Amino acid sequence: MAADRLTGRIPILESLRARKRRARRLYVLHGAQGIGDILKEAQGLPIEERSRSELDALTRGAVHQGVVLEIDTLPVHRIETWARQTFPKNAVIVALDSVEDPQNFGAIVRSAAALGACGALFAKDRSAPISAVAQKSAAGAMDYIDLVQTTNLVRGLELLKKAGFWVAGLDGAGEKSLWEADLAGRIVLVVGSEGKGMRRLVTEACDYLLRIPISGPITSLNASVSAAIALAEYARQQQTRPVSQGA
Amino acid sequence: MAADRLTGRIPILESLRARKRRARRLYVLHGAQGIGDILKEAQGLPIEERSRSELDALTRGAVHQGVVLEIDTLPVHRIETWARQTFPKNAVIVALDSVEDPQNFGAIVRSAAALGACGALFAKDRSAPISAVAQKSAAGAMDYIDLVQTTNLVRGLELLKKAGFWVAGLDGAGEKSLWEADLAGRIVLVVGSEGKGMRRLVTEACDYLLRIPISGPITSLNASVSAAIALAEYARQQQTRPVSQGA
Repeated sequence: MAADRLTGRIPILESLRARKRRARRLYVLHGAQGIGDILKEAQGLPIEERSRSELDALTRGAVHQGVVLEIDTLPVHRIETWARQTFPKNAVIVALDSVEDPQNFGAIVRSAAALGACGALFAKDRSAPISAVAQKSAAGAMDYIDLVQTTNLVRGLELLKKAGFWVAGLDGAGEKSLWEADLAGRIVLVVGSEGKGMRRLVTEACDYLLRIPISGPITSLNASVSAAIALAEYARQQQTRPVSQGA
Repeated sequence: MAADRLTGRIPILESLRARKRRARRLYVLHGAQGIGDILKEAQGLPIEERSRSELDALTRGAVHQGVVLEIDTLPVHRIETWARQTFPKNAVIVALDSVEDPQNFGAIVRSAAALGACGALFAKDRSAPISAVAQKSAAGAMDYIDLVQTTNLVRGLELLKKAGFWVAGLDGAGEKSLWEADLAGRIVLVVGSEGKGMRRLVTEACDYLLRIPISGPITSLNASVSAAIALAEYARQQQTRPVSQGA
């Protein structure tokens, strides 16, 4: 099975804690300080000390903070099987359309995991790969959320509709303000690429389009910021809805 | 007067449109396509064609997308004078404590401008400089929001309190959930650095601490994501408050 080389203290610590995939080997910088938490979680793993230049070579120059973890690659689900599960009455999924920047991809997955989304859906050939850069940007969050792949995003959204989800696209030209939307039940939030937004066919597959009201002369938000604001609004509505309605 | 060299099509276009500072000279890649909007805004400016290697040298290897703008540096206000203005009844300011990563700094300023904040406050020696990287990450937003500098962040917050602002710190351990907070009137939202949060003295200078409720095993959000969620919640409350209360 293929392996990843994770770098960075937080991503490594979170991956070890999540226990979602098998860790193989930990490399630590000779004399590294402040990695007690990581060493504790790495009990039972082979641990090898390396010089700075050896770690640099191992990670091809990425910022590693003195630790490198060799670990199985992340499990990625196929939408055809994943969508067949029984979802809770209230569930939110984030779908990424053509988010090709690995930092944005990772940042969106991090917010999705932190704000309680149950999955991140993406089309294999139109997304950033689940690279070390994306995993670092996700700060370990990729180990805590289901990563779900589809060969065609529109087809993936259709399968989720059949599973009881409404599909809401985030679009600056959307007819409905995020503040006016009733975000109850099962919802897929679709985020487009920085600059270009969603593709036309993906926009057409949405049940409705949500606009984050922005007030300044700036006409767009960063893709990961848009996703986080919408995910937070879903969480807010869940958490502040009267119990009688939410039961 | 000192000059900046901006790179990237969106940042350059936004800076030209904002007309907040004097543009001096535009360098364009020989044969560059799709820069009609920029050339239109640059009317009257000296425009010089350059080869790719010349542009690379001019920007020291930054990604420039075929355009480089030489422009006066951004005006930066001093808190002592800026805080003396008459603020509207409802106003939000974002304060950055030790946000040293220029991409995060730029991203926060972008969200602040887009979500209607009237200023971004930072301490000179504890923040990312207003570098080309930060300006690129802000995607032009730095030209649309007042950048306000203080030698000491706690002192800056005190001056804003005297101007009628409540100071709310974003802190994962905050006693009050963002969803429960009444974000009316004049508010400063203080954002700490990625990883470390706010410094102790800054935390103590806050009137109250706000927590963004996160539900997954992930324990923190990216600093720029936290700032955006809180700014969006302020905007949401402004825009959905009944007129009788908001008048």
